[in-house]
Amino acid sequence: MHKLVIHGGAGVPDRGAMTTEREALTRVALAAALAAGDAVLRGGGSSLDAVETAVAALEDCPLFNAGRGSAFTDEGFVEMEASIMDGRSRRSGAASLLHRVRNPVRLARRVMDCSPHAMLAGEAAERFAEGQKLPLERPDYFHTAERWDAMVRLRERGGAPRFEDQLADSGRGMGTVGAVALDRHGDLAAATSTGGLAAKWAGRVGDTPVVGAGVYADNETCAVSCTGQGEYFLRGTVAYDVAARMAYLDLAIEVAAAAALQERMADAGGLGGLIALDRRGNCALPFNTPGMYRGWVGEDGERRVFIYE
Amino acid sequence: MHKLVIHGGAGVPDRGAMTTEREALTRVALAAALAAGDAVLRGGGSSLDAVETAVAALEDCPLFNAGRGSAFTDEGFVEMEASIMDGRSRRSGAASLLHRVRNPVRLARRVMDCSPHAMLAGEAAERFAEGQKLPLERPDYFHTAERWDAMVRLRERGGAPRFEDQLADSGRGMGTVGAVALDRHGDLAAATSTGGLAAKWAGRVGDTPVVGAGVYADNETCAVSCTGQGEYFLRGTVAYDVAARMAYLDLAIEVAAAAALQERMADAGGLGGLIALDRRGNCALPFNTPGMYRGWVGEDGERRVFIYE
Repeated sequence: MHKLVIHGGAGVPDRGAMTTEREALTRVALAAALAAGDAVLRGGGSSLDAVETAVAALEDCPLFNAGRGSAFTDEGFVEMEASIMDGRSRRSGAASLLHRVRNPVRLARRVMDCSPHAMLAGEAAERFAEGQKLPLERPDYFHTAERWDAMVRLRERGGAPRFEDQLADSGRGMGTVGAVALDRHGDLAAATSTGGLAAKWAGRVGDTPVVGAGVYADNETCAVSCTGQGEYFLRGTVAYDVAARMAYLDLAIEVAAAAALQERMADAGGLGGLIALDRRGNCALPFNTPGMYRGWVGEDGERRVFIYE
Repeated sequence: MHKLVIHGGAGVPDRGAMTTEREALTRVALAAALAAGDAVLRGGGSSLDAVETAVAALEDCPLFNAGRGSAFTDEGFVEMEASIMDGRSRRSGAASLLHRVRNPVRLARRVMDCSPHAMLAGEAAERFAEGQKLPLERPDYFHTAERWDAMVRLRERGGAPRFEDQLADSGRGMGTVGAVALDRHGDLAAATSTGGLAAKWAGRVGDTPVVGAGVYADNETCAVSCTGQGEYFLRGTVAYDVAARMAYLDLAIEVAAAAALQERMADAGGLGGLIALDRRGNCALPFNTPGMYRGWVGEDGERRVFIYE
């Protein structure tokens, strides 16, 4: 029994605003990330390797707001963050405030495996990445016209960077990516990566690198990856809340995930979604936005990809 | 009904290694922080103002590993972090990777009140502090011979910076501070501030600035501030777990706090403690280290201060 579930963010434009071409490209990219992660699981690899591989594939695609296609801060540079968590050991790694690392999720993995800490941020994190021989890129690698224009539009509007505005702006500033997986050994893992809110302040840390907020994995309960306005996920400790409801209220994953999203995030006024997977392969993919790029693949090898309800 | 509970860290030297002078000075400092926060509550002020005031007083005292007396990274500078959370609104603010801000907890408060984000880190956070007219200090303000020597000793030992080593080193690299309070309006609040592990890597983010890990407050359940090896508190989402056990298992705060510390932190091999307070003024102060600097003051105005069991 193995399974991989991914998301490409809850920042999906309304159906009418989505072009046929963009939808087709996005579906291909999601299917390719599923294929890459599924190959790991099918070869007997770990869920940890599978989520790292799937998320790295999404980071390399400029369509998603993570890695290559990251959003810009209001000062005009990308500032990425990512996390990974191993459900077997409950160890985790995270990195934040990254400007040059090609695959933030791979740095998160190195923080977990090769550092004494759970989270590294800023220039020191990038020095560590260099020491680990991870590829670094120049600013032009991360430059996409679409993200740049979205940042400029949002910045000109002024005021606080809000998820609502980004959704209204055809969702073009959006697209955190993530993956949760179950491998043949029965181990769960989760990973999340993002460029953050378009026109966010430099130095802003969101929920993505935070265990319990934007990512969580524990073999006893579930693996979770979140997407949406990070401030709400952080303050609601949403990812861990799914696990806590399963452990303490004995809820099924679908019920726990829906309740966590509603009561810990949506009720406070937040927008977003999450993917969650338990050890029996049950998954839940709730969101309260018009859509969420998502997909999964299991034992039968069929890759299913969805955008709207 | 109002109450204030504080801690000055779980990194307490063994009884035999504590000098009479240091113990006396520490008791005076804890009592002074209690008095400062209690004055806010007694004057009808908010729990939020009380925890900020008490934590700022501890940050100003060089005896504790936060603000003035912060530990040094293995590169020889301080890198502080802090957080604050309002149990009424469940809003929060946090700041990390600070080198110059005199009172990190006051910056955390400004992030909550005056920024669109929940967490800011690094140079951008200090630029924000400057814009907010918060006092910044030069490196010599933060220099204490004791912390410097501890860092050098630990660095010379090599290997990963571990809480165990710091405890063995007479606990001199330790001393995260925190406060939880209940005000006359029935509102809870929590704040935590730290210089982090002595000889930690530059760029390391611990549990202190993370909602759900090192800090949490919700009027429906409790206010929590943690101290100890941050990596374990982060991965265990310990602060929120106390609240989750109260909400979902209907446990009393003493039982919830002890179980969260044991099952989510100690069982994984972690060392530390926490303080927790509920809306009826019940509090719990569990720790699995030789001691934890701590104290509380309630309606009767008597300031109680403890170090060991």
